[in-house]
Amino acid sequence: MKENQNFPSEFELIDRLFKPLAVANIGSANLRDDCCTMPLKKGYEALYSMDTLVEGIHFFKEDPADLIAKKLLRVNLSDLAASGGKVRGYLLALSLPHHVSLAWLENFVGGLREDQTKFGVSLLGGDTTSTQGPITLSMTAIGEVPVNQAVRRSGAKPGDDIFVTGCIGDAALALKLFEDLGKEETLQNYPDLYRKYVLPDPPTTFGSMLPNVATACIDISDGFRADLGHICSASNVGAKVELEKIPLSICGNQLIRTKKSYWESVFNGGDDYELLFTANKDKRSLIKGFGCQFNTLLTRVGSIEHNEGVFIIDKVGNEVPAKFGGWQHF
Amino acid sequence: MKENQNFPSEFELIDRLFKPLAVANIGSANLRDDCCTMPLKKGYEALYSMDTLVEGIHFFKEDPADLIAKKLLRVNLSDLAASGGKVRGYLLALSLPHHVSLAWLENFVGGLREDQTKFGVSLLGGDTTSTQGPITLSMTAIGEVPVNQAVRRSGAKPGDDIFVTGCIGDAALALKLFEDLGKEETLQNYPDLYRKYVLPDPPTTFGSMLPNVATACIDISDGFRADLGHICSASNVGAKVELEKIPLSICGNQLIRTKKSYWESVFNGGDDYELLFTANKDKRSLIKGFGCQFNTLLTRVGSIEHNEGVFIIDKVGNEVPAKFGGWQHF
Repeated sequence: MKENQNFPSEFELIDRLFKPLAVANIGSANLRDDCCTMPLKKGYEALYSMDTLVEGIHFFKEDPADLIAKKLLRVNLSDLAASGGKVRGYLLALSLPHHVSLAWLENFVGGLREDQTKFGVSLLGGDTTSTQGPITLSMTAIGEVPVNQAVRRSGAKPGDDIFVTGCIGDAALALKLFEDLGKEETLQNYPDLYRKYVLPDPPTTFGSMLPNVATACIDISDGFRADLGHICSASNVGAKVELEKIPLSICGNQLIRTKKSYWESVFNGGDDYELLFTANKDKRSLIKGFGCQFNTLLTRVGSIEHNEGVFIIDKVGNEVPAKFGGWQHF
Repeated sequence: MKENQNFPSEFELIDRLFKPLAVANIGSANLRDDCCTMPLKKGYEALYSMDTLVEGIHFFKEDPADLIAKKLLRVNLSDLAASGGKVRGYLLALSLPHHVSLAWLENFVGGLREDQTKFGVSLLGGDTTSTQGPITLSMTAIGEVPVNQAVRRSGAKPGDDIFVTGCIGDAALALKLFEDLGKEETLQNYPDLYRKYVLPDPPTTFGSMLPNVATACIDISDGFRADLGHICSASNVGAKVELEKIPLSICGNQLIRTKKSYWESVFNGGDDYELLFTANKDKRSLIKGFGCQFNTLLTRVGSIEHNEGVFIIDKVGNEVPAKFGGWQHF
């Protein structure tokens, strides 16, 4: 970035743009030191998630920088939530090509600033470098969880309920509509789906309650079926899901009524960043209580079984196949 | 990387190559979960450093992958050492273009494996993504330090001694010789300097003793003069250094005898990854003791002053100017 005229030096950049994101965090030492620090409350351990977004792979060059920043933070917060953690801070490594403008960076920082307020978190440290390649953004999110109570994928037991937060499939449906209708028409006619794709809203506060109730959890990033499969294989169990119970948004519901093949996107698409978790039946009322308390939509969609495999069953009891080619039973 | 024939999937890659680096760390959950965890000892807080190495900026495409891996780990460990921390684990984010081979990755992992043993650390978590650009490697190193005892740049006081570990300038001299003689001849005639450039060896164990003795510390990455300047400006003090006391390697010493302008590289080059720290005079014998205990070469090179600025003074009492153009006094 040194060749970019009027572009501030790395130190000026940090002082002007990033220090304001870090001042609330005493351990950041105002981003002026080699390291940052973070104490933990007694009885807690640290929880880490690290995710990278690369221009051309995870976002488009023309995507608004503030939304890219928010997505970067949110996919990491989603991982902490799925482990039952509460976010404490984050580190940010930016690799920026020379063509990145100060306006882009200001917009990026603006996105972080807004989400810092929304999620109650602040910047702790990081690194900035130049690159001859695409914009590459790595984040390490740091959370806390009671010692030995992080919720893993591997704890699901036969007989457990399966719950999901929010609605499933909206982000994947938006992507599918991009293909079918083009981006313009999708944006115009399905703004809610587009928003869900571009800016996930993981239920972070609800997530931090999971150690009290969940036996296993994952955030839905690869897709409902695949992520439920991850829980099942890590836990050596299977799952039976009732198709009718899968929570769809109004828009998602309308879409699958017009074209049943859209179910494919709902099950096999990804980017929901909702939580998929399992819990003992005894916890139902407690879970309902947390859902009310944190204003989080919760739906019980099925149960964990002894037999391996993920089975989605329609209202007449037939199995919905993993690939939709021959499925006509709905 | 999906287009690369015979290249394992992300899950296979993690299982085959990276899981063995993480098994010693129970908090890694074998790299199979959304997050990893780390408890802290009572009375300690976590210490974080995050650094990125980009192909074409921080390393050459043809550099051996095991050395790139080691450098990535070591520049992060150097930061933890400069803050007085002891390393506990690390997270790794790899952004890899399609042309990266399995052999390259195996070599990269081999480098990490060797350094994990050398520095007593293991992998905790991370992320792998593809990129259309250069290889981009981000690491978050996690250490621990007694609560509120992280050594900062800002604690130097007038009257403090200034110490450095190891020898100064070797890495920068290697780079200078690349320019003057070419890489081949440098490698052949100055292998020790080249090694120091390509593979720093930060005094990590000594670093973890710093909270007992140091008022301020930094690792020398930007160059001796610049990094001492960072301590001085953060501490609102100045520094006086005796040229004669600056520790040079045998090779470095021979070089500056043939060409005095090489001092420029010693002072203003970087990449030493030695520690530059300040301490109250009362601590001299304790510091000497730690140096013996951990087999770390320590040299007292000057003292902190009230007046701002970094002054390097030759044996007849003349100041060595920041730029060497007019300096003939040595």
